[in-house]
Amino acid sequence: MRNIKVVVSYDGTDYYGFQFQPSVRTVQAELERVLGLITKEPVTIYGSGRTDAGVHAAGQVINFRTQGSIPVERLCLAMNCLLPPSIAAMEADEVENDFHARYHARSRLYVYSILNRDVPDALASRFCWHVRHPLDVDAMRESARVLIGTHDFSSFASADRDQTSPMRDLNGIEIRRLGERVEIAVRANAFLRSMARVIVGTLTEIGLGLRPGLDMKRILEAADRRQAGKTAPARGLCLREVEY
Amino acid sequence: MRNIKVVVSYDGTDYYGFQFQPSVRTVQAELERVLGLITKEPVTIYGSGRTDAGVHAAGQVINFRTQGSIPVERLCLAMNCLLPPSIAAMEADEVENDFHARYHARSRLYVYSILNRDVPDALASRFCWHVRHPLDVDAMRESARVLIGTHDFSSFASADRDQTSPMRDLNGIEIRRLGERVEIAVRANAFLRSMARVIVGTLTEIGLGLRPGLDMKRILEAADRRQAGKTAPARGLCLREVEY
Repeated sequence: MRNIKVVVSYDGTDYYGFQFQPSVRTVQAELERVLGLITKEPVTIYGSGRTDAGVHAAGQVINFRTQGSIPVERLCLAMNCLLPPSIAAMEADEVENDFHARYHARSRLYVYSILNRDVPDALASRFCWHVRHPLDVDAMRESARVLIGTHDFSSFASADRDQTSPMRDLNGIEIRRLGERVEIAVRANAFLRSMARVIVGTLTEIGLGLRPGLDMKRILEAADRRQAGKTAPARGLCLREVEY
Repeated sequence: MRNIKVVVSYDGTDYYGFQFQPSVRTVQAELERVLGLITKEPVTIYGSGRTDAGVHAAGQVINFRTQGSIPVERLCLAMNCLLPPSIAAMEADEVENDFHARYHARSRLYVYSILNRDVPDALASRFCWHVRHPLDVDAMRESARVLIGTHDFSSFASADRDQTSPMRDLNGIEIRRLGERVEIAVRANAFLRSMARVIVGTLTEIGLGLRPGLDMKRILEAADRRQAGKTAPARGLCLREVEY
């Protein structure tokens, strides 16, 4: 059996998330359908992680095993001919047999885009959250610092999360203003369900002056989802990169 | 009656074009619905021009007449609260009574985006045409020059166009490579139906070496749609700006 790793990107707008679910459109189902056609075998793919409905990816990583003989150099072209335009295969490599896109990932980088100006941008509406009032990026940056390190991130996870450990290593969080856009880049070994979006929602409330920056430490320590801010909309979030 | 001009932008992907048509989703119908709610009157809008199904706009201009008293400073905010995210009002002004968005427009600028690289970009798939093989931008630029000026553009218009004059003033055409993107900007006093897209389709065939650059003069002079290249897909085209 060959083990093949593929970097894929997708516009998540029209999908019910990455992970397969019966009778709705998912990224996983599209990829498995297309790889099944190419290899003429039933294919199961493993993704570096689930992305929620509406979340995008520029660098999601998957792997799958196959007895098919298609050269990796031609795999992306074959996939892109069969995939809808909202999903693209960027790069394919044959990898060692034990490689697993999820278990071997060392870190994930998510980037959240906010359009911070008076009027919305219809042409960017699928890829950013429109926040009208000016954000105090310095206050957001200052309060974000306490999140760096190994912590129990229960305050920033969907209440309905799986019963796994809520401990995660947050390696870095960078908040930049690029003209009318504010970008929040968060890197962690792994993310709890909705974690990136709850962090962004909370930081935005701080940036708008709706809660004091000092709140962040208290929220983190509370390990209670009710203490944090609202979950930012899915459309602003993009899985940029996975490191192995 | 007040006469109000509004600059609007839209992601045309999910619309059957700008112009009202019964029982399908159009940009005009959305704008008239929302302005009707705001002014509490039936509203008819006039656009600077129709855009085809799937074509976008960053700077479409409309005007409408109303007896409503809403201050123009608050009109965009009111519209954006009621519009879907795929349409945004950018700027509103009260204008002289005889102003007409279509008849008074001096020129329109359309920009067409091509992604010219091996792999497609899922995140840009709604806003550009993916052309895999390298385009010779110099050849495209050279051949485009003969289009500048006042000509019969019948070769570059949909066969089903209205029975108006096929003469148009093409003021300029700029073709730029920006890394993996090629942008074609065309400014004219007005455009025949599909004109920008047939010009782009023909230039792309020249850029791919599928037809000689010298062909352009012959095509223009033939005044025959069958001589030109294929119509480029709607998704790469955007109405950038209208001048008055």
